[in-house]
Amino acid sequence: MLCRSAILVGVMLAGVLGATVTAKAQALKDLRTPDTPLVLKAQGSFFVGGEKAEQTQVELGNLGPGGHITVNQMYVRYMVPQGGDGNVPVVMVHGATLTGKSWETTPDGRMGWDEYFVRKGHPVYVPDQVGRGRSGFNQAVFNDVRAGSVPAASQPSWLRFSDEGVWPNFRFGLKPGEPFSDSQFPVTAVDELAKQGVPDVSLGGLPAPNPNFKALSDLAGQLTGAVLMGHSQSGSFPLEAALLNAAATRGLVLVEPGRCPAYRPEQIATLVKVPILVVFGDHRDNPTGLPTLPTWQARFEACQELIARLRSAGGQAEMLNPPDRGIRGNSHMIMQDKNHLQIADLILQWIDERVSKRKSGPERSTP
Amino acid sequence: MLCRSAILVGVMLAGVLGATVTAKAQALKDLRTPDTPLVLKAQGSFFVGGEKAEQTQVELGNLGPGGHITVNQMYVRYMVPQGGDGNVPVVMVHGATLTGKSWETTPDGRMGWDEYFVRKGHPVYVPDQVGRGRSGFNQAVFNDVRAGSVPAASQPSWLRFSDEGVWPNFRFGLKPGEPFSDSQFPVTAVDELAKQGVPDVSLGGLPAPNPNFKALSDLAGQLTGAVLMGHSQSGSFPLEAALLNAAATRGLVLVEPGRCPAYRPEQIATLVKVPILVVFGDHRDNPTGLPTLPTWQARFEACQELIARLRSAGGQAEMLNPPDRGIRGNSHMIMQDKNHLQIADLILQWIDERVSKRKSGPERSTP
Repeated sequence: MLCRSAILVGVMLAGVLGATVTAKAQALKDLRTPDTPLVLKAQGSFFVGGEKAEQTQVELGNLGPGGHITVNQMYVRYMVPQGGDGNVPVVMVHGATLTGKSWETTPDGRMGWDEYFVRKGHPVYVPDQVGRGRSGFNQAVFNDVRAGSVPAASQPSWLRFSDEGVWPNFRFGLKPGEPFSDSQFPVTAVDELAKQGVPDVSLGGLPAPNPNFKALSDLAGQLTGAVLMGHSQSGSFPLEAALLNAAATRGLVLVEPGRCPAYRPEQIATLVKVPILVVFGDHRDNPTGLPTLPTWQARFEACQELIARLRSAGGQAEMLNPPDRGIRGNSHMIMQDKNHLQIADLILQWIDERVSKRKSGPERSTP
Repeated sequence: MLCRSAILVGVMLAGVLGATVTAKAQALKDLRTPDTPLVLKAQGSFFVGGEKAEQTQVELGNLGPGGHITVNQMYVRYMVPQGGDGNVPVVMVHGATLTGKSWETTPDGRMGWDEYFVRKGHPVYVPDQVGRGRSGFNQAVFNDVRAGSVPAASQPSWLRFSDEGVWPNFRFGLKPGEPFSDSQFPVTAVDELAKQGVPDVSLGGLPAPNPNFKALSDLAGQLTGAVLMGHSQSGSFPLEAALLNAAATRGLVLVEPGRCPAYRPEQIATLVKVPILVVFGDHRDNPTGLPTLPTWQARFEACQELIARLRSAGGQAEMLNPPDRGIRGNSHMIMQDKNHLQIADLILQWIDERVSKRKSGPERSTP
C-alpha cells in the first residue's frame, strides 16, 4: 500500500498544485458497456411542482421587461424497464453540492445504481433537488445585489466541497492521496467525482419548508406509491416526505443520511407506518475536516436511536451496517464504491422482502 | 380560434396573476408510453473537460477551509441503440436559459428528439452547457461579493426569459395566450416549458473563449467523429467546434441559430470541409419583444449569407426552411413542436445523405 499511496500522492499533487491544471481523466474511453442490452418500456423526464413568481426587469437579467417565471420546480429523469411497470418504483435523491448524476455511471465508468435497479425490474426516478442542476434556482436576489438595490449580504452563499475536504469527509482516507487500505471508493477516478460537484444554494437559498419535501411527497403520490431513497444531505428527505403523505411512501431508504432527526411522538406515530432502511458505510469515526459538523459515527448513532424509537413504537425500521456482514471499507459515496452492486443487492433484497411482498397492513388502509 | 384563444388567455391569466400561483400541469400523468420498447446497448453519463481552480474558504461557501475544485467541465448524458454503435453519433446542445432537458420528453409528454434519434439508429449525446444545469458553474465571485471583498458589480448577471417574453420571442404568437392560428407549439403545455428555464450566466460569467467550443470539439474527437447539433444560443457552437477540429465534426446542424457569424476567409476555408444544415421555423418576422436583438428573420438572412459564402467556396451547406415545403407554424422550440418528428425526419434524411453515405473526401484525409 505504501507504493500505491505514493503514486496517488503524486497524482493528487499534479491536480492540486497550480490554480488551473487540466483535470486528467478522459471519461468517455473509460465507460464500460454492459454484456446485455437494456430494454426499456419508457424513459424520459418531467417536472414536479413549481410556482409562478413575478420578477422585475433587473431580476430577470435585464434583457427584456419584467414578468413571470417558474421557480421551485423539480426535474426528474426516469427509466421504466420492459415488463417492470408493476414493480415498486424507486426514487433516488442526491446529496449536497451534487446532482442526480450521483446515481448514474460511476466516476470510473461502471453502471450506476439507476440502471442497475432498472435491470432488477424497478422503474427508477432520479430528480435534481429543487435549487440545483436541471431544476434551476431563483436568481432574483443575485441580480438585485448586482444592481445595488439590496445589500450584498442579502444573497445566500453557494457551497462547494474541495478535493482536499472530500477525502476525509467522504471517508476515502485520512488525507488526499492516502486512501484507507481497504477503501472501496475508486480513488484513481476521484477527479471524475470532482466534476460532479455543482454549487449548492440550499443552506439559506430555498424557501421554508424546503420545497424538496413536498415535491418528493407529490412525486410518490403521482406514482401511487414509491420507495424514496435519499443520500447524505437528502438522507432525511424521505422521512419528511413520509410525514406529508405516509400512504404514498411504500418504503424509505436513507443512505448515509446527514441527520436522523429527533422527531416528536406524533411524527413517530406516522413514520411507523412505513418500512425504513438506513444504510451506512465504514470508517465512520474518521475526522471529517469540518469541525462544526458531527462525525459520521455520531450521525450513525442518531439513526440507531431513531430506529430504536420506531421499533419500540411498532415500526419496521432497520440498519444495514456492512461491517456487521464482514463488508469493509465502504465510503460515503457508497453508490459509487467498487462493491456498489453488492450493497445494491442488499437494498434490493430489503425492498423485495419488506416492501414488495408486504401485505396491506393497517397503515395502507388509512391513507 | 377565438374561443380557443379566450380559454388560453384565461389559463395564462391564472398563471400570470399573483406572485406565487402553483403551476397547473401534473406532468407525470401526461407522459406517453411508446408502442415498442427502447433497446439500448448502453446508456449513462460522463464529463468532458474541466480544470482545477484553487479557491478560498469564503469562495467555497465557508463550511470548510480553502482548496481546489473543478470548474468548466461539461456533463453529457448518452444513449447508444442496440446495433447502432457503427452509426454516426449525434450531439444535441441546448439554448439560452435551458438545459439538455430541451431534447428530452416534450412539455406535453411526447417522445423527445433524443430518444427518437436513438430509435432511428444513432448514438445520442446530450450535454448541459458549461456553466449550466448538471455542468455547474464557478460560484467564487458570488461568495466574494456576499462577503464584501469585491464590488457587487463584479458578479455577472443571471438571465431568465419570462413567460410574457417567451411567447413573442419563441414565436408561439404575438402575445401570451394568443398563439398563431397555425402554431405548431403545444401551447396548452407552455407552463411545462417554463419549468425548463434555469438561470443562464453565460453572458459575462464564462471565461473567453467560451469553454463550450473546446468541450464540444473534444467530445466530437473522443467519439471519433460526430454530428454536432446546436440550438438558438448554441446554434453557432458547432461552427466554433469545427473551427477547432474540422476532422472530428462529420456534420453540423444549426437549429434556429442565434447567429451565423461573418467568418474570415480562412475560417470559411475550414468550414467548407464539413456538411452543414441550418434549420429555421416559421413566423420569423414576429417582433421578439427584445428590441436590442435582431429579429429571427434577420438571423435567418445572416445564415443564408453564410450558406452562400460556404457554397461558393465549395462547401456543402444548405437551409431547411419548412415553409418552402408547405410546413407552416413551426416555432423557435421546433424540437418540441407538435410536428417535431416530421422535422426530425428531414434532419435524419440529411444526415443519411450528406454525412453517413459520404465518401471520404479530401477534407477527411487532412485532419
